[in-house]
Amino acid sequence: MPNAVDEARHELAVANRIIAHEGVLDAFGHVSMRHPTDPGRYLMARSRSPELIEPGDIYEFTLDSEPVAAKGVTMYGERVIHGCIYQARPDVNAVCHHHSPSVLPFCITGMELQPVFHLGAVLGTAAPFWDSRDDFGDTNMLVIKPEEGRSLAKALGDHWMVLMRRHGATLAGSSVRELVFRTIYSTANAEIQLRSMLIGKIGALSRGEAELTGPYQLQPRPIARAWEYWTTRLEKRGAMPRAGRKSKPRQAKKRSRR
Amino acid sequence: MPNAVDEARHELAVANRIIAHEGVLDAFGHVSMRHPTDPGRYLMARSRSPELIEPGDIYEFTLDSEPVAAKGVTMYGERVIHGCIYQARPDVNAVCHHHSPSVLPFCITGMELQPVFHLGAVLGTAAPFWDSRDDFGDTNMLVIKPEEGRSLAKALGDHWMVLMRRHGATLAGSSVRELVFRTIYSTANAEIQLRSMLIGKIGALSRGEAELTGPYQLQPRPIARAWEYWTTRLEKRGAMPRAGRKSKPRQAKKRSRR
Amino acid sequence: MPNAVDEARHELAVANRIIAHEGVLDAFGHVSMRHPTDPGRYLMARSRSPELIEPGDIYEFTLDSEPVAAKGVTMYGERVIHGCIYQARPDVNAVCHHHSPSVLPFCITGMELQPVFHLGAVLGTAAPFWDSRDDFGDTNMLVIKPEEGRSLAKALGDHWMVLMRRHGATLAGSSVRELVFRTIYSTANAEIQLRSMLIGKIGALSRGEAELTGPYQLQPRPIARAWEYWTTRLEKRGAMPRAGRKSKPRQAKKRSRR
Amino acid sequence: MPNAVDEARHELAVANRIIAHEGVLDAFGHVSMRHPTDPGRYLMARSRSPELIEPGDIYEFTLDSEPVAAKGVTMYGERVIHGCIYQARPDVNAVCHHHSPSVLPFCITGMELQPVFHLGAVLGTAAPFWDSRDDFGDTNMLVIKPEEGRSLAKALGDHWMVLMRRHGATLAGSSVRELVFRTIYSTANAEIQLRSMLIGKIGALSRGEAELTGPYQLQPRPIARAWEYWTTRLEKRGAMPRAGRKSKPRQAKKRSRR
Repeated sequence: MPNAVDEARHELAVANRIIAHEGVLDAFGHVSMRHPTDPGRYLMARSRSPELIEPGDIYEFTLDSEPVAAKGVTMYGERVIHGCIYQARPDVNAVCHHHSPSVLPFCITGMELQPVFHLGAVLGTAAPFWDSRDDFGDTNMLVIKPEEGRSLAKALGDHWMVLMRRHGATLAGSSVRELVFRTIYSTANAEIQLRSMLIGKIGALSRGEAELTGPYQLQPRPIARAWEYWTTRLEKRGAMPRAGRKSKPRQAKKRSRR
Repeated sequence: MPNAVDEARHELAVANRIIAHEGVLDAFGHVSMRHPTDPGRYLMARSRSPELIEPGDIYEFTLDSEPVAAKGVTMYGERVIHGCIYQARPDVNAVCHHHSPSVLPFCITGMELQPVFHLGAVLGTAAPFWDSRDDFGDTNMLVIKPEEGRSLAKALGDHWMVLMRRHGATLAGSSVRELVFRTIYSTANAEIQLRSMLIGKIGALSRGEAELTGPYQLQPRPIARAWEYWTTRLEKRGAMPRAGRKSKPRQAKKRSRR
Repeated sequence: MPNAVDEARHELAVANRIIAHEGVLDAFGHVSMRHPTDPGRYLMARSRSPELIEPGDIYEFTLDSEPVAAKGVTMYGERVIHGCIYQARPDVNAVCHHHSPSVLPFCITGMELQPVFHLGAVLGTAAPFWDSRDDFGDTNMLVIKPEEGRSLAKALGDHWMVLMRRHGATLAGSSVRELVFRTIYSTANAEIQLRSMLIGKIGALSRGEAELTGPYQLQPRPIARAWEYWTTRLEKRGAMPRAGRKSKPRQAKKRSRR
Repeated sequence: MPNAVDEARHELAVANRIIAHEGVLDAFGHVSMRHPTDPGRYLMARSRSPELIEPGDIYEFTLDSEPVAAKGVTMYGERVIHGCIYQARPDVNAVCHHHSPSVLPFCITGMELQPVFHLGAVLGTAAPFWDSRDDFGDTNMLVIKPEEGRSLAKALGDHWMVLMRRHGATLAGSSVRELVFRTIYSTANAEIQLRSMLIGKIGALSRGEAELTGPYQLQPRPIARAWEYWTTRLEKRGAMPRAGRKSKPRQAKKRSRR
């Protein structure tokens, strides 16, 4: 009988693959979820490209982003992005960090991202900016130190998406499936906003429209409809994770950051 | 012996899949057709992504957008887009609603969509705008209430395409295949117009050219040629609906809107 | 033993499929070649999308664009594009007509297409414009009447590519493989020129560079290298025409124009 | 037991295929590596499109770009790009030359390419320009003569990427895998910079950020993670080179330049 953690690891592997397969993630970026039974921990893959992740690649971490049991496994260097958001936001149960070419132009120019069509309203009413330069000066751009993670989580505040200058975006969700939906449609919104700006003055959703539309789109039914669509597309490409949910993490040899 | 309704359901499933496969529809959007023998009804899928639709997913609706026989099946929430257009326009036998990234920049900026090449003339001589804000103020952006559907149908008027501000487009056709052709080539026209505007002042078809060209392109032969192309592409990807035309709607458990 | 015409029909079917598979042609457009042994005739498919063409779909036409032997087969309506160019240009042995979204922005704005990188020099030193409106006023935009074909061939003059306002492009080649190379790399050049114009002032090839570079790229070796690449890509997708070169044209039922 | 040269030839074939499969190379362009045991030689394929290259297609060249043993095999005409860089830069062990539509707009306008996101920092702090016109006037644009290769290598200087006006880009790496990583992410950076410039004023990495970030991204672990991703994608498409590493070069018939 699959337990909650096995099911969660399978769900998280699927989420990684969907976001990669729909073109938001490439070799880099990562997706995590809060532990299904212990809110003081979260689940995330070892350092591996999202499109390749199997349930057996997924490990437990404390909210300080320390691996719980794994020894000698290479983990993502930017784990604090995840841990610090779970610490700051008890309502967040899933986090995605990516570098999509649709969103990066906003991160590079500082142009405000706005919901410009109904599905884009899932990004929230606004996406604040975070600049590593403000608190830390010249760095290697990655969010590795706990203070960097806390600074980013502070910039996110009570929003659901934060734009990282010259780097990418980090999104939060109250569930894995909500996170996947928000990640894919906020990216679509960015692409459409960019394209719209090329031909005229954009007319975005009003604050009132955004507040009514975002939550409506994030109800269980639209999310289920999109989830069926994305998983079927994975299946047709033979790209679903392996069936066994109880797959044991393979023996790993070394441990380090990235 | 397959009857007219079975054949219609198969045709409509193929139409859904073509428009999705050619990149206009994604997880959302929907396609319907008027009932082949009862003009007071229309056929449309239950709430499911267009690329996945089987003939067995397709149900009958009254022109008030009430399902005729289905109990406990989740239907699209925006059914009135379809029902209200069939009520207002006896010459319309098929309707598509989509959110293509090629067309949305026009919906977001209010820039006029114009036929800029011969195949683009199938959109008609013009595509009017509709803004939910005009009649209804701040809403959740979806077209769910009968008065919203009637407002949209009124904006469409005697045209074949209406651009919905901050939302998407709705297209009509005198047949399913004409609708598919119009949807795909009006989307291509939008993409080409957008790209043209990036490098210079566009020279669109004259009114006289548009009036001569649109109907010429919508004759049976060009439509048949394109239909063979699109269905062959579906077949090569193993993406055609299941062969059985008499497939029974699967038992559904719940009924709701979206 | 395959004869020259059988081989030519196979080569022409492959050329159609390459240009479609590389994204220049879609449901519409057409490719022809001069008859390999009778310069007073040319070979072209019946009315069918280029990606689907089999050797058995290819027929003979006089230079007046009349089918030689076929009865009851639907042919492309714009055959005179091909016939009139073969009449005017004895050095031309292959012709392609397309509506690529990369080239159309130039046709719609009247912006001059220029060779901007070495491979783009295969378009020639310039691509003149033709506007059906100049000689014929408002039309259905298609090139169907002999006088329309002659007008277009005159605009082409001694160039190798002509841009048709609000319509598309027509290209000529001294061989089928040269035509395929010119069609694909002139389209790439258009895309790159458009993208370059978005970020600065373009610096195109000088006249001297264009005159040295175009012929160099059209030598047998670069063409053979690209031909191996494009045909291998077709093969990997299972998209080559059927092997039999002697395939008999299937019995067709009706004949008409388009 | 596979020797170092056999392994190198397999690695280089994979590198060619990855760069093509990820969309940077098409029918043209080439990738080479310094000989693994003799720094006075380098390995590169015979004249063939990168996506098709097998280990058996790879030959040895002196640093003067003369083939060591092959007789009658057609080689790339632009070999001196590779040989002259290996001569000038003992720290360089791999070279790629390409014409990506993402990078060409910079080559055509002279717009400066800058690292605009962390992964883009792998291009180095700057990419200088080279213009064949400066030293050689009107040419056929290709880099074929030794003096042309030396001029290009001089423009590269101690950088890792040089932009060739109206032609493309050439990149160097201290290893094949570093080169692949730099080629793919510098191309991504160019695409993202171009898109950013469309919507606002770009804020690139500071010099300090670029100097810290580039070397960090080129450490063994990020490169290994991306390499696993790219090779898995090739495998899933059935696009890896043939398994046999000791494959003998097939008998070739003629030899010439291009």
